[in-house]
Amino acid sequence: MEFKISKSVFNNALSIVTKAISSVAPIPSLSGVKITVKKDRVDLIGSDSDISILKTVRLADPENKLEIIEEGSVVLDARYISEIARKMDSEIITIEIIDGTLVKISGLNVEFKINGMRSSDYPEISFETVNKPNKMNVSTFEKIVRQTVFACSDKESRPALMGVNFKAEGLKLVCNATNSFRLATKKVDLENELDFNITIPAKTLNSVVSIMAENREFDMIIDPNKISFVCDDTTIRARLIDDLYPDVSRLIPASFSQVLEINTRELLDAIERTSFIKSDGKNVVKMSIDADRLDLSSNSLEIGSSHETLEIISFSGNPITISCSGKYLSDALKTIGNSIAVLNFSGELKPIVIYGKGDDSLTQLISPIRS
Amino acid sequence: MEFKISKSVFNNALSIVTKAISSVAPIPSLSGVKITVKKDRVDLIGSDSDISILKTVRLADPENKLEIIEEGSVVLDARYISEIARKMDSEIITIEIIDGTLVKISGLNVEFKINGMRSSDYPEISFETVNKPNKMNVSTFEKIVRQTVFACSDKESRPALMGVNFKAEGLKLVCNATNSFRLATKKVDLENELDFNITIPAKTLNSVVSIMAENREFDMIIDPNKISFVCDDTTIRARLIDDLYPDVSRLIPASFSQVLEINTRELLDAIERTSFIKSDGKNVVKMSIDADRLDLSSNSLEIGSSHETLEIISFSGNPITISCSGKYLSDALKTIGNSIAVLNFSGELKPIVIYGKGDDSLTQLISPIRS
Repeated sequence: MEFKISKSVFNNALSIVTKAISSVAPIPSLSGVKITVKKDRVDLIGSDSDISILKTVRLADPENKLEIIEEGSVVLDARYISEIARKMDSEIITIEIIDGTLVKISGLNVEFKINGMRSSDYPEISFETVNKPNKMNVSTFEKIVRQTVFACSDKESRPALMGVNFKAEGLKLVCNATNSFRLATKKVDLENELDFNITIPAKTLNSVVSIMAENREFDMIIDPNKISFVCDDTTIRARLIDDLYPDVSRLIPASFSQVLEINTRELLDAIERTSFIKSDGKNVVKMSIDADRLDLSSNSLEIGSSHETLEIISFSGNPITISCSGKYLSDALKTIGNSIAVLNFSGELKPIVIYGKGDDSLTQLISPIRS
Repeated sequence: MEFKISKSVFNNALSIVTKAISSVAPIPSLSGVKITVKKDRVDLIGSDSDISILKTVRLADPENKLEIIEEGSVVLDARYISEIARKMDSEIITIEIIDGTLVKISGLNVEFKINGMRSSDYPEISFETVNKPNKMNVSTFEKIVRQTVFACSDKESRPALMGVNFKAEGLKLVCNATNSFRLATKKVDLENELDFNITIPAKTLNSVVSIMAENREFDMIIDPNKISFVCDDTTIRARLIDDLYPDVSRLIPASFSQVLEINTRELLDAIERTSFIKSDGKNVVKMSIDADRLDLSSNSLEIGSSHETLEIISFSGNPITISCSGKYLSDALKTIGNSIAVLNFSGELKPIVIYGKGDDSLTQLISPIRS
C-alpha cells in the first residue's frame, strides 16, 4: 500500500471518520481508522460498531492531490494518525506500508514509522443500501434534532427511549423524544410523501448533524434495522433501535384549564438564577400563577431558598400552583425559539405543555413533581 | 449584619477572594467566604489555610455604592454566593442576616435565603505585617513567575522544590525553580538594594499573578515564615516554604564543549510533532547534531518512531548525540521568548543549558536521559 494525498484533504477526511470512533473501543481494531487504497480512490472508515462512517477520497478530483502508487489496506490508531496528519510539515503526505503493518508516513523533512493493525482484524462493515433514498434538508434535520434529542433517555433499561422516533405518513413527519418525564414533539411538513416509522439513536443524530452541517441536503436511506446518511463521498451508517416506540400522543392532555403567556427570556433567567438550589441533586421550581403574576420559588433544606416575582403577559383560568424540574423547564424554553412562551396547564398533577406563541410545530411536555 | 453594595463591586471582590478557596476545603468553614461588616467597610476573606486573600470594600469610595445598615459577620458558601451575585437582577445587592446564620440576599424582584455558617467557626486569619514593604513591578514579577514556576516539583517529598526560591543580594535578584531534573534560573536587576532568601510556593505565585495582573505594582512584605502581597485594598497572605533551598548554582556546568544555535520555533514544532510517541508515558527526544544539521528522533516500541532533520544556524564542537525529555525541552524553549535558541552541551551525560540568543538573564537547564 502506498499513496500520496493532500494534507488538508486527509485531515478533513480523518476528522469526519474519527467522529465515529470511541475512546473505549469495543475491540482493539476499532480504535483505528481503516485505510483502504484502491486503484481509483482511498476509503477511510471509522466505527464504534453502532455508527460507522466511510469517507472516500477520489483520484478523479484534482483537489485531493491523490497519487495511488500501490493498492492495499491497513488500520492506524486514530489518535496517532490524526496527530501526525495535523502536524505534518508538508502540503502532501506520503503513506506507505514498509513491513507487515509498519507504516511510514512522510512529509518534507519529517518521517514517522507507526505500528498499524492488519485490516483483516477490522470488522467487515457494509455500507451497501437496499432501499431508495429520501432527500433531507440539512437545516430542517438540524432543527428537528436540536429541538428533540435532549429529551431522550440516557438509561439503557428502555432502549427505545434512547433515540428519537421519526414517523412519516404521507406529507407529515412527526418526531418524538421522551425519557418518560418529559416529551418533545416536532411536526414537519414534507415535500414528498413518505412512509416510515423508525427510532434513530440520539448519538447517531448528533453525529449526523455535526458531520453534515456544511452541506445543504443529504440522502437518508432506511433499510431493515439500519439507516444510512449519504452526502457526496461521506456515508454514515448506523443501527436503528428495533424496540417498539411507545404511543406518546396520549400523554398530551386533550384540553387545558389554564393558559399562561410569559416572556421566554425572563422566565429562563429566573430559572437559571435558582439552578444551584438543589435537593438530592435536583433543582425543583415551584410556580404560583394568578392573573397578575408568576411567583417562582425553589427550596432546599441544606442550601436555602429563592423567591422571585415575574410579570406575565396573560393568564386565563383559576390560580394554580405547580412544581417541576427547573432543568427540564429551562431545556424546553430554550428550544422553542420564540420570545413568548405559552405554558398550558390542566391541573397540578397533569403535565405542563409548552410551545412558542403562534408555533404549534413544536410541543414540549413536562411532568409535574408533587410538592 | 446588613449592608447594600454595588453588584459589580461585590462580584469583583468575590472573584478575587474565591481564588484562595479550594474545592476540597480542609475544614467546612473554609469552603465559604467570610464577610465582615464594620462601620466604614466590608471585609471579604477567602482562604485554603495556605493562602488567604482579604479584599476590603470601603464606604469612602462612592463607586462601591456601599451602605452599612448593621455591623456583623457571617460565612457564606463560596459557590452559592458567587452564583447569586453573578445572576442578581439589580445593580445593588442587599445582604442581611435574618435569623442566626440564615442570610437574605435580595435584588429587585429576587430574594434568596441561604444557610450560612457562623464566623466564629472560621479560623482566625491575621493579615498584619511586621516588616517594611518592598515595591514590586507587576510585569517584572509576572515574567519571573512565567519563566520559572513551571520547573517546580509537584512532589510533596521535597517541599522546598514545590516553590520558587527568590534570593536578593544588593541590587541582584536570582530566582530558581527546579524539580531536580530541570532548573530555571532568572536574574533580575533591582532598583533598590534588597536582602532576602525565601521560597514561595508555586500555587501562591500563580494566584498572585492572576490577582495582581491588572495593577502596575504591589508591595511585597516578607515576615518570618509568611509573605504578603498588597495592592490597594487587596492583600494576599501566604506561608513561605521553610525548608532549606538547595544550592542549585553548582548544577550549571562551568564550561561547554558544544554550542548550537537554532531557530526556536522550528525546534519547538519538531518536538511538538513527536510528542505522542511515548514510552512509559514519557516522550524522549534524541538529538544528533553536527556542523550541518540536527537530527531529531523519538522512539517507542509500542507506537513507532519519528525522525526529522532540522537546519541549524551554527554549531561549534564535535558532533554530539544526546537525549532528553521532549516536554522539558519544549517547556524551556517556550519561556526564552527569543527567536534564536542557544543550546550548550558538555557531554552526553551532562545537563543541557538553554538560553535565548543575547539574553543571559534566563537560563534553562535540562538533565539528559541515558539512551
